Amino acid sequence: MSSSEALLTAAATWRDRFAQRAGGVTSSAIRELLKLTERSDILSFAGGLPAPEAFPVEEVEAACHRVLQERGADALQYGPTEGFLPLRELLAQQMERQGVPATPDNVLVTTGSQQALDLVGKLFLDPGDHVATEEPTYLGALQAFAAYQARYLPLPVDDEGLRVDFLEDALRSGPRFLYVLPNFQNPTGVTLSLERRRRIVELASRHGVPIVEDDPYRQLRYEGEPVPAVATIQAQLDGGAAGGGAFRGGTLYLGTLSKILGPGLRVGWVVAPDEVARKLVQFKQGADLHTSTFAQMVAYETARDGFLDRHVRRIRELYGARRDAMLRALEDHMPEGVRWTRPHGGLFLWVTLPRGLDSSILLGRALQARVAFVPGAPFFPDGGGAETLRLNFSYCAPDLIDEGMRRLGGVIRAALASRPRSTAAQRPG
Amino acid sequence: MSSSEALLTAAATWRDRFAQRAGGVTSSAIRELLKLTERSDILSFAGGLPAPEAFPVEEVEAACHRVLQERGADALQYGPTEGFLPLRELLAQQMERQGVPATPDNVLVTTGSQQALDLVGKLFLDPGDHVATEEPTYLGALQAFAAYQARYLPLPVDDEGLRVDFLEDALRSGPRFLYVLPNFQNPTGVTLSLERRRRIVELASRHGVPIVEDDPYRQLRYEGEPVPAVATIQAQLDGGAAGGGAFRGGTLYLGTLSKILGPGLRVGWVVAPDEVARKLVQFKQGADLHTSTFAQMVAYETARDGFLDRHVRRIRELYGARRDAMLRALEDHMPEGVRWTRPHGGLFLWVTLPRGLDSSILLGRALQARVAFVPGAPFFPDGGGAETLRLNFSYCAPDLIDEGMRRLGGVIRAALASRPRSTAAQRPG
Repeated sequence: MSSSEALLTAAATWRDRFAQRAGGVTSSAIRELLKLTERSDILSFAGGLPAPEAFPVEEVEAACHRVLQERGADALQYGPTEGFLPLRELLAQQMERQGVPATPDNVLVTTGSQQALDLVGKLFLDPGDHVATEEPTYLGALQAFAAYQARYLPLPVDDEGLRVDFLEDALRSGPRFLYVLPNFQNPTGVTLSLERRRRIVELASRHGVPIVEDDPYRQLRYEGEPVPAVATIQAQLDGGAAGGGAFRGGTLYLGTLSKILGPGLRVGWVVAPDEVARKLVQFKQGADLHTSTFAQMVAYETARDGFLDRHVRRIRELYGARRDAMLRALEDHMPEGVRWTRPHGGLFLWVTLPRGLDSSILLGRALQARVAFVPGAPFFPDGGGAETLRLNFSYCAPDLIDEGMRRLGGVIRAALASRPRSTAAQRPG
Repeated sequence: MSSSEALLTAAATWRDRFAQRAGGVTSSAIRELLKLTERSDILSFAGGLPAPEAFPVEEVEAACHRVLQERGADALQYGPTEGFLPLRELLAQQMERQGVPATPDNVLVTTGSQQALDLVGKLFLDPGDHVATEEPTYLGALQAFAAYQARYLPLPVDDEGLRVDFLEDALRSGPRFLYVLPNFQNPTGVTLSLERRRRIVELASRHGVPIVEDDPYRQLRYEGEPVPAVATIQAQLDGGAAGGGAFRGGTLYLGTLSKILGPGLRVGWVVAPDEVARKLVQFKQGADLHTSTFAQMVAYETARDGFLDRHVRRIRELYGARRDAMLRALEDHMPEGVRWTRPHGGLFLWVTLPRGLDSSILLGRALQARVAFVPGAPFFPDGGGAETLRLNFSYCAPDLIDEGMRRLGGVIRAALASRPRSTAAQRPG
């Protein structure tokens, strides 16, 4: 075998062992879909894209100007792996406001919160280790963990989020951690109730299982009151037990500026107890030395002085109207038997098709009708979900949402009409 | 055990298993040192920092302005994992000029070339797998590979680079790949001769071992003629055998814009055969989705229309003068018995102390004399190198280089004078 063949073999072997589902299927599915969104004649509800009109382009440009005029050489130079200190201070303050007692030492800036998931994989996972997750769950997390050859303990989700009645059994079988998206979960859009959050913290603590809380959409709430983060509940418990103070406890909290300032900056963060943060810093150093100094400084310069809060209000209004438009359009255009979630925030809602329809097959027909979505199956770590799909409501304007759901409704109707009776009857519920 | 304790245990266990040398010692050593460079009274030759006066701040600002005016929403949006296409085209052209037949499909933009090392670790390494490396070698590579629990087959280096007479034995024991820095190697500054490059390609091919060629300093040559890259030699062989065409072969080539435009942008790249590139894209998607769209667009907008070539000439002049200043200062100030390399380019040179001196102990005294360097030991994957140290010559101006070497010479002289005769005699050569 030549070195060239050896290289190809290394790649091909990975194609096999890199979790057949999470790596293979999903990545290529999502990638092909993202390519489709570039075709202008297709109304795409597939991506997780923020609306471009929500980006504060002018403010970012003013920030670039200030950063390069005042600290140009610093912005282009290597920086500390932990991140740009003023940004970490700002993020620590934001965590404090959420009731998580974090200092800048607890905050590590990451290259998008996707990188935090990769670092979590590095910290916890040896090949074959188990992760407890919601089912369905965020595809990017499955991809990050798949690179460490993770296996899964999937937990079903209902309208109040993860079903805690299944949790204790899962925790007993020794996962390395529990991965949860409590707010407006990707892909389902559902929010974990306060009661269940409390129960999760209690059970995880009892069974000695750390929690990884992924919270990218927290600020994008369009109705109802904010629910305390899992990390907040844990901090209250720990504070009550030990008299307050620095961030401790068994929860890693992941946040991002992607949904507010723009994902193109790739600025996220993870909050962790001191010792764990130091370890994550070490991994990050090996992974990319540090997140772009320039992007961090520009993000900080844009975000400071209360701009984030003001800007979030604008985005909430924009996306809230689009969520409403999509809920209305679904009512108007979906045939009987199609069900969907009613998210209080975030970017996505989740559709369950009538029995006997497969969303992967439906996608081909949908593309012919010039409308796109993400089939649900790839979000299921252990298979299933053929009859589900995810819709993004943040990217398209309300009139296009209506037109898109009209097209999709037509495609589903046609599929139902041509569904062989026998198939429908044979499929298990 | 509570979930909080479980989290701390996960971090602490890693502290043990995360290669005692590569992870523990070196990271903390480098990190403490980088902190020292922030103290303004210390002349630091420790970092690998480009000179801030070499950064094209004005050009970057003009590029920011154009990018945000013309494509602001795109720059802040998610982008393809492979990278910004015009940048990949520009990098593929640059590779073509070097004799590596690459198309944009062979080029993956990474978050600094450090991330390419992490992706290489993901592609090749299972816990306990071996990597053949130069000894000493780049610390960041050891850190990247350590996260995948690599072990090493270290190969000695002389003034012509990696000693190929040791290579065949190492390749026979089945490393997953050979990691080499052929130009102005970090940390030694030595350049691999053409003859040895050819021999490496030949032997690696015969034994079926892929080569990972890390080439961050290629354009920073201050004397002599460029030597073809290992990837170029491989392409010539493959082209000769198979009639030319797309990039194939067993070499992954890693490049970066950090040393030319500025490391704060975090834009590097890896060139790989199609199938391998696609696999690396999948890993990168899990690792950080993509490199900052904004940073990539700004890098492209700055680099295009020949600016890179013009700017490189300026940097070469600046750093060449500093290398000369350091070589002169070493001649002037070092006591007898101290030896150093004479690099033809790059950022570093390598000092070997007289027998019986330990550079880690010397560092404490050097800091008292307000001069800093990196001790050599952490660059040795399997231990050793106590009597070596690395000096950076790109960051400080020539007069400060002279003053710094005067201080360091004094510290070494004092250490030699106080060296106990018995210690000196007892130490093995």
